[in-house]
Amino acid sequence: MSLDPPITAVREVVARAIAEDLEPDGDLTSSLLPADSTATARFVSRSDGVIAGGLCVNETLFQVDDALEVEWVLYDGDRVTPGSVIAEVTGSLASILTAERTALNFLCHLSGVATLTSRYVAAAAGGAQIWDTRKTTPGLRSLEKAAVRAGGGRNHRGNLSEWILLKDNHLAGLGITDAIARARDQWPARTVECEADTIEQFEEAMAAGADLILLDNMSVEQVVMCVEKRGDARRPLLEVSGGVNLDTVAAYARTGVDLIAIGALTHSAPVLDIGLDI
Amino acid sequence: MSLDPPITAVREVVARAIAEDLEPDGDLTSSLLPADSTATARFVSRSDGVIAGGLCVNETLFQVDDALEVEWVLYDGDRVTPGSVIAEVTGSLASILTAERTALNFLCHLSGVATLTSRYVAAAAGGAQIWDTRKTTPGLRSLEKAAVRAGGGRNHRGNLSEWILLKDNHLAGLGITDAIARARDQWPARTVECEADTIEQFEEAMAAGADLILLDNMSVEQVVMCVEKRGDARRPLLEVSGGVNLDTVAAYARTGVDLIAIGALTHSAPVLDIGLDI
Amino acid sequence: MSLDPPITAVREVVARAIAEDLEPDGDLTSSLLPADSTATARFVSRSDGVIAGGLCVNETLFQVDDALEVEWVLYDGDRVTPGSVIAEVTGSLASILTAERTALNFLCHLSGVATLTSRYVAAAAGGAQIWDTRKTTPGLRSLEKAAVRAGGGRNHRGNLSEWILLKDNHLAGLGITDAIARARDQWPARTVECEADTIEQFEEAMAAGADLILLDNMSVEQVVMCVEKRGDARRPLLEVSGGVNLDTVAAYARTGVDLIAIGALTHSAPVLDIGLDI
Amino acid sequence: MSLDPPITAVREVVARAIAEDLEPDGDLTSSLLPADSTATARFVSRSDGVIAGGLCVNETLFQVDDALEVEWVLYDGDRVTPGSVIAEVTGSLASILTAERTALNFLCHLSGVATLTSRYVAAAAGGAQIWDTRKTTPGLRSLEKAAVRAGGGRNHRGNLSEWILLKDNHLAGLGITDAIARARDQWPARTVECEADTIEQFEEAMAAGADLILLDNMSVEQVVMCVEKRGDARRPLLEVSGGVNLDTVAAYARTGVDLIAIGALTHSAPVLDIGLDI
Amino acid sequence: MSLDPPITAVREVVARAIAEDLEPDGDLTSSLLPADSTATARFVSRSDGVIAGGLCVNETLFQVDDALEVEWVLYDGDRVTPGSVIAEVTGSLASILTAERTALNFLCHLSGVATLTSRYVAAAAGGAQIWDTRKTTPGLRSLEKAAVRAGGGRNHRGNLSEWILLKDNHLAGLGITDAIARARDQWPARTVECEADTIEQFEEAMAAGADLILLDNMSVEQVVMCVEKRGDARRPLLEVSGGVNLDTVAAYARTGVDLIAIGALTHSAPVLDIGLDI
Amino acid sequence: MSLDPPITAVREVVARAIAEDLEPDGDLTSSLLPADSTATARFVSRSDGVIAGGLCVNETLFQVDDALEVEWVLYDGDRVTPGSVIAEVTGSLASILTAERTALNFLCHLSGVATLTSRYVAAAAGGAQIWDTRKTTPGLRSLEKAAVRAGGGRNHRGNLSEWILLKDNHLAGLGITDAIARARDQWPARTVECEADTIEQFEEAMAAGADLILLDNMSVEQVVMCVEKRGDARRPLLEVSGGVNLDTVAAYARTGVDLIAIGALTHSAPVLDIGLDI
Repeated sequence: MSLDPPITAVREVVARAIAEDLEPDGDLTSSLLPADSTATARFVSRSDGVIAGGLCVNETLFQVDDALEVEWVLYDGDRVTPGSVIAEVTGSLASILTAERTALNFLCHLSGVATLTSRYVAAAAGGAQIWDTRKTTPGLRSLEKAAVRAGGGRNHRGNLSEWILLKDNHLAGLGITDAIARARDQWPARTVECEADTIEQFEEAMAAGADLILLDNMSVEQVVMCVEKRGDARRPLLEVSGGVNLDTVAAYARTGVDLIAIGALTHSAPVLDIGLDI
Repeated sequence: MSLDPPITAVREVVARAIAEDLEPDGDLTSSLLPADSTATARFVSRSDGVIAGGLCVNETLFQVDDALEVEWVLYDGDRVTPGSVIAEVTGSLASILTAERTALNFLCHLSGVATLTSRYVAAAAGGAQIWDTRKTTPGLRSLEKAAVRAGGGRNHRGNLSEWILLKDNHLAGLGITDAIARARDQWPARTVECEADTIEQFEEAMAAGADLILLDNMSVEQVVMCVEKRGDARRPLLEVSGGVNLDTVAAYARTGVDLIAIGALTHSAPVLDIGLDI
Repeated sequence: MSLDPPITAVREVVARAIAEDLEPDGDLTSSLLPADSTATARFVSRSDGVIAGGLCVNETLFQVDDALEVEWVLYDGDRVTPGSVIAEVTGSLASILTAERTALNFLCHLSGVATLTSRYVAAAAGGAQIWDTRKTTPGLRSLEKAAVRAGGGRNHRGNLSEWILLKDNHLAGLGITDAIARARDQWPARTVECEADTIEQFEEAMAAGADLILLDNMSVEQVVMCVEKRGDARRPLLEVSGGVNLDTVAAYARTGVDLIAIGALTHSAPVLDIGLDI
Repeated sequence: MSLDPPITAVREVVARAIAEDLEPDGDLTSSLLPADSTATARFVSRSDGVIAGGLCVNETLFQVDDALEVEWVLYDGDRVTPGSVIAEVTGSLASILTAERTALNFLCHLSGVATLTSRYVAAAAGGAQIWDTRKTTPGLRSLEKAAVRAGGGRNHRGNLSEWILLKDNHLAGLGITDAIARARDQWPARTVECEADTIEQFEEAMAAGADLILLDNMSVEQVVMCVEKRGDARRPLLEVSGGVNLDTVAAYARTGVDLIAIGALTHSAPVLDIGLDI
Repeated sequence: MSLDPPITAVREVVARAIAEDLEPDGDLTSSLLPADSTATARFVSRSDGVIAGGLCVNETLFQVDDALEVEWVLYDGDRVTPGSVIAEVTGSLASILTAERTALNFLCHLSGVATLTSRYVAAAAGGAQIWDTRKTTPGLRSLEKAAVRAGGGRNHRGNLSEWILLKDNHLAGLGITDAIARARDQWPARTVECEADTIEQFEEAMAAGADLILLDNMSVEQVVMCVEKRGDARRPLLEVSGGVNLDTVAAYARTGVDLIAIGALTHSAPVLDIGLDI
Repeated sequence: MSLDPPITAVREVVARAIAEDLEPDGDLTSSLLPADSTATARFVSRSDGVIAGGLCVNETLFQVDDALEVEWVLYDGDRVTPGSVIAEVTGSLASILTAERTALNFLCHLSGVATLTSRYVAAAAGGAQIWDTRKTTPGLRSLEKAAVRAGGGRNHRGNLSEWILLKDNHLAGLGITDAIARARDQWPARTVECEADTIEQFEEAMAAGADLILLDNMSVEQVVMCVEKRGDARRPLLEVSGGVNLDTVAAYARTGVDLIAIGALTHSAPVLDIGLDI
């Protein structure tokens, strides 16, 4: 499983981020430095976590100044503690300072996502997988989903085009059984997921052959009941979603559910504190 | 003061976000609905906070289906409590469901930034302004800076091209007095800001005529000392930066410093929980 | 099921196509016409087929001149015969002539895809679904996949990111059983498809729990054997791929296989002959 | 005459095509492979034809992984037979498999255009040149026009901005003589082409000094008459257009007409079957 | 002949220009104004000239605030004197002030091009046409070429792809006769132009059948000689290029040459002074 | 102070400029040359001036053909006289001729800006700095501002987002004192500039604490009066703007004003005549 986002997305997002920080007049402050100053700088973690975003850092440094040289010590998915050296960059001091904040904005945010994911993964203790959601930062979805993988999580559907997820608002006019049949007919071989708010809905969705059932805002007890009703077969996969946090994730993970979707991984992860020491 | 980001940035970011969620095959699930289903949906807050991102929601709905009609009840900068209706959208049910997540991703993230900002502003109790930093999400800088304004904060420099900020790494080879003189000569009328890690550096920067002095990682006592040394004049403005959080911001605000820069406003704000009720 | 491609893709592709035909000096020939000439023109089919691409025509006319008025008589997915009027556009003659070729390039190509699809669908006579492949024209994937739907076909995976398809080159180093297990572990709930070149591989893939098995270049007899071995259960879905054409598709469809993937739908469909009569 | 399209167009189209196939999560299947697997793969023709699109293949491989090494055996414009090795690529197996389909989509489509062109050129047997039209695939015009050159054809006007082509709908309000005079006055030195549906129109267009006369849907006999009326001078050039196919092209070519425009070259060319053998 | 540039180019260039002037924080100064202030403003000429760029002004106002209403009094190609009212815009004062400079940058620059063109046209007094060159401002070619038309000039080839122009550096290795034959063969029906530095080269180019001969840096006497040698036929067209200015253009125009190409029209035109009066 | 524009802007603008000159069919004329012709060419000045735009030339050559080798003799900001060799490029003759015009369009225009700037700087004789304005060519702002620096000038605010400039139309409804207070409150630490048309307005703006006062269309005598009223302190900076030309700039510079803003630097600079000798 690659921990990198697609290079096409990285190139585009990095180009926009650098332009956003430099135009129209470039880095005024670095332009005051002697042109021939060089330096070596280290990306160093200031706290505990998991890193992600290495490819974005590389691309940022390269786009700012392709003469900068980077040596990586740690890679996406690696754990860091305060003081861990992640990478070392050598070259023009002005270029390094120009690229610093953009590179760190990527590295700290994506490592923040990876770190929060790794906390949920640890709390679930292997009882269930931790998945992301579509609650991502606009423009950064593919980067954040790669960061979730770096943190040991798994990716939910990439977007609305990838698989069917029938939520209450879709089901209102259709009914679960009919909706799933329609989905199978029109989008065969796509994963068909169905939300269930009650045990009855769960049973209907299972009977209708959903691949994945989203147990929405259910209590641990309700989830246990669903797991038992499913029995030993692997399918449908059961997803817990809604209101699970680091305190409650372990209880849900112990139910035997397959996966727990956590919007916070991508919408509310604080940055991992990483600095650039020169 | 406009609480809106530039419309050019909104158009571009929204177009990318919708494409990211829809391509290549569109919203499979909504495509199962009867084509003529219509609905009215309300953006409703589930918690306390300040909203931001209204322009992005508008643009998202418009780009997905320009026949959707939106009525706004509350505006960027308004406070919400659980149950507050923010806006109401009427039109095709399929279009509303297709736009829902993208619209909410903007609204929840930017309102999260506004809300966290408002907490810092409240904690500072008027003793000092709360400013953002360049620690923004790549690609969203102008949107996040508008959200900071919606939350009652103020904007630091927009990017590296806007004003001079001499940090320790710039000063190493130049010295404060020389660096400020050089900045004044080469970039006249630009704001010249200088970092000071010690009282001595502060005094040198003040003597050299900095417009703004960043008191980096100083204790409350050190900050008080700097404020006293500045005396009654308005200039230089004094900025506290580094390690200030919601617990410590009040103490710093009471020192008489002009502003406190908080990276967390944009890099670590959790979303404001807002839902779409249909 | 929506027969439209995502509007975001349509807007971008149309803008590029118009620019490609107009820059730098615009339509020289139309510029010779009197500025106030108006006309009504009809998109009329010159042959039998199924139309697709209506949204692209709309967007082309709108981007060239938003005062043009279009009335649609037939819609994507409708059948046409020689002489069928598809739509009527009224407004500036110069604008209509400027937009004509770009609009027709979309309409004829996408209707060509829909028409060829409908021929395969008719030949399969309901015995199996007809699917597209990733053998699409660069830059037009989402448009062509919508055209396949308009022709009565179904869409295979949208791209490499949507589901797993283990082909011989992937399997060489991994083995079918291990590869499927690895896919399930790393990309849970994604459709996992596996290529089988022999009956033995088919059996291994079925035992390993593939959702979909691609029967690659198998004879009708081999396919019959696979269908029998699968038995009555719905899963795994069986896909026939490789070398099927309009002459042989019926025989494969009668085997009881679920779907037949036809690269030619998108890579070799001749245009449907449609003209603009003024 | 360069057989390559402009590098700017290639870079843009390839970047879009790769993104279209990879985002948001990258190539899931290749991500299951061991990271250090390498391979050598050959682009091999499975049928007879002429190749085009080499620059697109190069750019695709480079953008996916700039460490891939490609060695070309045959070049755009070269003929292939089943088994001909076109190029060999060496490097990461995962990268090769990720790039495979996008590279082949370019190579097979553009070689299909070159091959169909070469068939028309052969059928015309030097009696007339074979030209393309503006009936190209949206977004790919410059690539397809280069492929026509690779197949031995020649390029008609690039777009509406390049030269004047007065068709019946333009002429309705203006008259041939006036229209040509107007074109000469307003767009001097541009090629002025005029459609003629009858011998009378042909004579009027010739008298008015058209550079090029499009003989629209004329019979072979009518074309012969026009050729004779033109006499020995080189100008105006005579173009046959409309309804010419591989069966009828030779007869038209023998008339002494200068060129025959074939829309099918770019709008209906089936792919050339080329595979990647690993 | 349309005096407008292609709308696709206008939309793109205007979007970039507005973003360039507004991001990241929007128009700080206008944001200080009361939100409900409205105004009527007039674009008024401060000097004599010819206007161009109306479409760009419209698009700028529309993209900044689609509620602004514009009424045009004068159009591209119209003459103005100091005090001439060109257009009137009504709506939000803040929006008008935000759009002002970008709209004026287009209008003043393009009207400057049109005005300088009209001076050359007047000086040539109908003796020869005035043409532009490829010496345009990067990114603005189609806009500047439209402005040349507004000023009464004509457009040379749009770019390197439109027609053949054999200059001394091309001819060094080929020879005029061979080069023209090669051009005719490979790019039939394209305009073939050839540079001539001497009377001998002129004669060779004429004999070889060039459509257009560029008389490079010739004296008025040499030009007269070429015109005489051409005789009464219309072809080849004769172009004077190199070092012609407003003082010398009349003498060249009187030679009977067809056209005079003036790089200064687009590379050195001072703006036309136009203001916005509120 | 860096004389280069941001590399992100250069890459984008150059890519557009090359595409504009090459699409759809590439450089027809160069395509006639033998593929293996190589050459060495020199960028040579034909007049006196200051060069700028070296980075754009580099990027143009690189994007057209990355095998071209360039050696720079002179750099942005250096003075040239007729015959000065600026740079030498070696490689494919066809590539050099294809890139020639685009490279020269950048170099001549930007050197024109630098040269005109240097004339104003010389005329001001150190008595005041010469600044640019926002009257730049749409899409080229960052390039032109770098060229102003190369000519010895200084940059005014980059755009509307950078600092506050209160002009008469803003002040009409607000009053100077209130407007400045409002600006200080809402956009602290930003430069606040205020226009003054009269001595009274100047005094009010100074009293209100403006950082910079724009003395709009004042006579030399009025400016002298303002300089005297300001006294010895450095702040506020005084800017002369409006109607200053090369004849009058010296008189204004001698007044003791800090800076003179000249729109003509970017909106009306004629090109510097530079050629490419092969």
